[in-house]
Amino acid sequence: MQTFKLRGLIAATFTPLDDDGRLRLDEVPAMVDHLLEQGVSGLYVCGSTGEGMSLRSDERDAVTAAFVKASGGRVPVVAQVGHNSLSEARALAARAQEIGVDAVSATCPSYFKVNDVATLIDCMAEVASGAPELPFYYYHIPSLTGSTLDTVDFLRRGSERIANLHGLKYTDTRLFEFQECLELDERRFDVVWGCDEMLLGALATGAVAAIGSTYNVAAPLYRGIIDAFDAGDMGRARGLQRLSVQMVRTMGKYPFHAAMKSVLERNGFSMGGCRLPLTEMDSRQTQRLAEDLEAIGFFQWSSQPGGDRGGRSLERTEP
Amino acid sequence: MQTFKLRGLIAATFTPLDDDGRLRLDEVPAMVDHLLEQGVSGLYVCGSTGEGMSLRSDERDAVTAAFVKASGGRVPVVAQVGHNSLSEARALAARAQEIGVDAVSATCPSYFKVNDVATLIDCMAEVASGAPELPFYYYHIPSLTGSTLDTVDFLRRGSERIANLHGLKYTDTRLFEFQECLELDERRFDVVWGCDEMLLGALATGAVAAIGSTYNVAAPLYRGIIDAFDAGDMGRARGLQRLSVQMVRTMGKYPFHAAMKSVLERNGFSMGGCRLPLTEMDSRQTQRLAEDLEAIGFFQWSSQPGGDRGGRSLERTEP
Amino acid sequence: MQTFKLRGLIAATFTPLDDDGRLRLDEVPAMVDHLLEQGVSGLYVCGSTGEGMSLRSDERDAVTAAFVKASGGRVPVVAQVGHNSLSEARALAARAQEIGVDAVSATCPSYFKVNDVATLIDCMAEVASGAPELPFYYYHIPSLTGSTLDTVDFLRRGSERIANLHGLKYTDTRLFEFQECLELDERRFDVVWGCDEMLLGALATGAVAAIGSTYNVAAPLYRGIIDAFDAGDMGRARGLQRLSVQMVRTMGKYPFHAAMKSVLERNGFSMGGCRLPLTEMDSRQTQRLAEDLEAIGFFQWSSQPGGDRGGRSLERTEP
Amino acid sequence: MQTFKLRGLIAATFTPLDDDGRLRLDEVPAMVDHLLEQGVSGLYVCGSTGEGMSLRSDERDAVTAAFVKASGGRVPVVAQVGHNSLSEARALAARAQEIGVDAVSATCPSYFKVNDVATLIDCMAEVASGAPELPFYYYHIPSLTGSTLDTVDFLRRGSERIANLHGLKYTDTRLFEFQECLELDERRFDVVWGCDEMLLGALATGAVAAIGSTYNVAAPLYRGIIDAFDAGDMGRARGLQRLSVQMVRTMGKYPFHAAMKSVLERNGFSMGGCRLPLTEMDSRQTQRLAEDLEAIGFFQWSSQPGGDRGGRSLERTEP
Repeated sequence: MQTFKLRGLIAATFTPLDDDGRLRLDEVPAMVDHLLEQGVSGLYVCGSTGEGMSLRSDERDAVTAAFVKASGGRVPVVAQVGHNSLSEARALAARAQEIGVDAVSATCPSYFKVNDVATLIDCMAEVASGAPELPFYYYHIPSLTGSTLDTVDFLRRGSERIANLHGLKYTDTRLFEFQECLELDERRFDVVWGCDEMLLGALATGAVAAIGSTYNVAAPLYRGIIDAFDAGDMGRARGLQRLSVQMVRTMGKYPFHAAMKSVLERNGFSMGGCRLPLTEMDSRQTQRLAEDLEAIGFFQWSSQPGGDRGGRSLERTEP
Repeated sequence: MQTFKLRGLIAATFTPLDDDGRLRLDEVPAMVDHLLEQGVSGLYVCGSTGEGMSLRSDERDAVTAAFVKASGGRVPVVAQVGHNSLSEARALAARAQEIGVDAVSATCPSYFKVNDVATLIDCMAEVASGAPELPFYYYHIPSLTGSTLDTVDFLRRGSERIANLHGLKYTDTRLFEFQECLELDERRFDVVWGCDEMLLGALATGAVAAIGSTYNVAAPLYRGIIDAFDAGDMGRARGLQRLSVQMVRTMGKYPFHAAMKSVLERNGFSMGGCRLPLTEMDSRQTQRLAEDLEAIGFFQWSSQPGGDRGGRSLERTEP
Repeated sequence: MQTFKLRGLIAATFTPLDDDGRLRLDEVPAMVDHLLEQGVSGLYVCGSTGEGMSLRSDERDAVTAAFVKASGGRVPVVAQVGHNSLSEARALAARAQEIGVDAVSATCPSYFKVNDVATLIDCMAEVASGAPELPFYYYHIPSLTGSTLDTVDFLRRGSERIANLHGLKYTDTRLFEFQECLELDERRFDVVWGCDEMLLGALATGAVAAIGSTYNVAAPLYRGIIDAFDAGDMGRARGLQRLSVQMVRTMGKYPFHAAMKSVLERNGFSMGGCRLPLTEMDSRQTQRLAEDLEAIGFFQWSSQPGGDRGGRSLERTEP
Repeated sequence: MQTFKLRGLIAATFTPLDDDGRLRLDEVPAMVDHLLEQGVSGLYVCGSTGEGMSLRSDERDAVTAAFVKASGGRVPVVAQVGHNSLSEARALAARAQEIGVDAVSATCPSYFKVNDVATLIDCMAEVASGAPELPFYYYHIPSLTGSTLDTVDFLRRGSERIANLHGLKYTDTRLFEFQECLELDERRFDVVWGCDEMLLGALATGAVAAIGSTYNVAAPLYRGIIDAFDAGDMGRARGLQRLSVQMVRTMGKYPFHAAMKSVLERNGFSMGGCRLPLTEMDSRQTQRLAEDLEAIGFFQWSSQPGGDRGGRSLERTEP
């Protein structure tokens, strides 16, 4: 466990559904192959993107198993098991371990709010104990859980209590807190960035891994950001990040989750709609989104190695 | 279904646990008998008070069944089935109907937030369809779900879509919205008040039923408020409500849920602690709470018919 | 000072402006006469309704002076002097005392948030010291200041420090906290209700005074609520409160402040628009609002003694 | 105006006070000389750091004049004139122009909240019109104003209406929105970063100017970040940013504003305390803060050119 590390772009996978909202797991293998071809180096299953909280527990198990099988050990698979019932979350973690995931991750409950770090540690200890042989990552996403607790303090004190505490998925925009988590105790923890449209800032701050939803549809673009950053070509990295920001803004004019699924659909995967309380798009919205994405060149630069054309064309306005 | 109505004080029941945090359902019958003796006229099971969200689904079924059996038809039993997964919530509703509850109630999801009334109706339609033969009550509690949506609009438009929409549990402090819900379409809906420490204001505004946690420990006091209000004795009603406010403030200095359970424990019921993320009290806190409650006379006035002594002694400062 | 008490309906007055957004104080005398005729028993000047925070300090002085003069000692005039600069607030308080107001009131700052009661007391002590000979009322309005601090604790500890602390204007919906403030130390403080559309619940809880904006346009209706409540006629009180709720909902579909001013305009007062950041209505909105208000009978029941017709017609649906 | 640009580190200056809380402007010249020696390239006066909102208008004018005089044209001086009264803000802007500042900046009101971009534009248009010959910067700080409005949309539409709209001070952590503002219309606007402890991420994203409070006490450290970044030495830049994060965390354990002032006091400037509602430190806290800062080496690395020692010693743990 000590040497397990998430690196590069981890796709927070979508859950394919049929027209009746049931799982359509036969789509998973092709999706996973596609993601790996695009440069994705890990899968984060049943997270917010995968609508984990909107699935029944038996469905979460099935989705997890499908991705584990499809990955076939090629890249690590992380199962997100957060649940309002920590007893259920623990059981989900235990089953994920049996299924063969490489790591477990969980949000804290969102109905009753967790208001202090000590309680957060107690909660995560209960979940992590369900899969004691696997690395555990706390999933910090205050915009959805309502718990804006000090993650540095959580890691520091939590590691004394939770033997398999391995790191966290940091889904907030406060780079300074992320940096502290990253650098704590000589970079002991695996701290993974969770805000795609700020990847460049995170790389500068020290990020080496990122989990996100847009890596499902534009991994080559983000690989280009990483490569440009590593090569010291800030202008190019910035130009590519700009495309990511445009993509997110464009999709954000529509129900975001449904918008992403419609792009995957266009890429040849039968993704279906989403579960309530997320909302779907009607056919007119789907059409308009496609036009909006076309207008910003998304279908070119999102999938080309290095996101090439876009990067070049946009760099010109740099000072 | 049309004539089903909740009336009077409905206890939002606590879930008895043993020292290991497992269900202790053999305590339920005595608790129910006690509540009914104290004047409670209904049971709301697996709500926030009952930590429904912190239980696994099989536990929720078991708790619901225990209360249905213990009630034996003497008072209506409502099962709260809200869940982040609406599919699971629907299944819980279906099983609650099989178990034999009299009505079903549900919060909306709390992880993904419900941001508009149309989506709220879609969500509640899915849950309510699990128990189509039972009255359904939306459980409005924005402080926990994060959804502060217009309940009047929900009732008006929701009833066109949800055949068994019967009313709602209104757990907020905005009496004007509560009044509109109550009076909508010639008082067509069963709208139940959910803030114990404001019961008197709600009665004045038209409330005829209330669901709450403190009715587990002080139903006679609240019966006294209702009786005084009905008799037009506002000074007395106010004096008794004041005791309720003191009780809530005193318990609110401690983890509220654990504080309530410790009072039930003192009343002879083995309630155990609570599930995370709610926090427990240590023995020193338990002792101090008991002293604080003793100091305000709680153990006298909470259980006496009419809350007698307290009401009288406190009325003196009325203008 | 000890015997000063606010009683009945206190209008939170509007500030008349001309077409260029400048003060139009020649409208004040007729407005005040009208309000007194309608049963208003006090004036709260430069509060949220009067856009005090949007005026320059010299304008606040001028508005205050105009209302003091127009009242001519017939009813008490309270000047609201809250300001982000407590030094300026103190100066406003001092000038209000010179101008001859009967009491001073202030919110806490809203830019830097006040996060604890001790600091709130320090802040209010500074403001209140500007008018040491006058009763001082803290203006509690957490929805605008962002400070949801314990008002009971504020009164208890604040009165040790602020010699002229007389009470507070409670603009929130938590009746239980309002009740505790009211009853503290044998009803020592003058605690004034601030949510018009919940007046009946507040009366039941013990309110004897209320400050609000809708008392400018429908004082007779609210007088009717008080009279019915005092007479023990709950059904009638409720029916009249319902009209108030309808009125607020109807106006709330428009920019509320501008909506209220347009009603006053219709009543014959040249009120003008409002200051930014509040927004105005265009002529089409003004027309539609008038139609909406006509449809609910507002122009009949708002000004008739006892709000008579509406009360009767709506009582029928009572159980 | 077209060519005016803020570049490098702009200190959001503190306002020196005496023991009675009055302005102590004779400290300003030495402070300004010191800041310029330390590498500061601009002054932002009467912002949040300078407690602009807590000063009376005459005090704001005096503080602004003192900094303009002390700067003597060596670096640009920006006056922050935000006020709940836009009329007063406009007057402050007009006087700042007369005093001779180089640019004007303003928050939107914080009492009445600005809820849409159109109203924000109207508000800023009113303020900016007070100093029509000067560049105007909107001061975006949603954590204090409560207005989380789309700054990209504000710039795009606002520039059609506000002739002198020059850019904004972006005090939030959302780098993607900051990047969009920066790059809008071929980098037409001067968009200045406002979160010191994330400077490195902002530089990577394209920032060329930053306004902040900690540049008063550690400008050489931040110059070191910029230099390392420009030289492509990410490891060093990160090591220095880490020191900044440690500094902010250490000071954040105390009342932040008072903590910063106590460091300036130690640096030889008589800064005094702060105005309510900000809170002061007692002498024990002041002592403990000094010890805490000593423990992290602050007094060495904060003022040395390039923050040298700290950068080196901390780089070692880099991967």
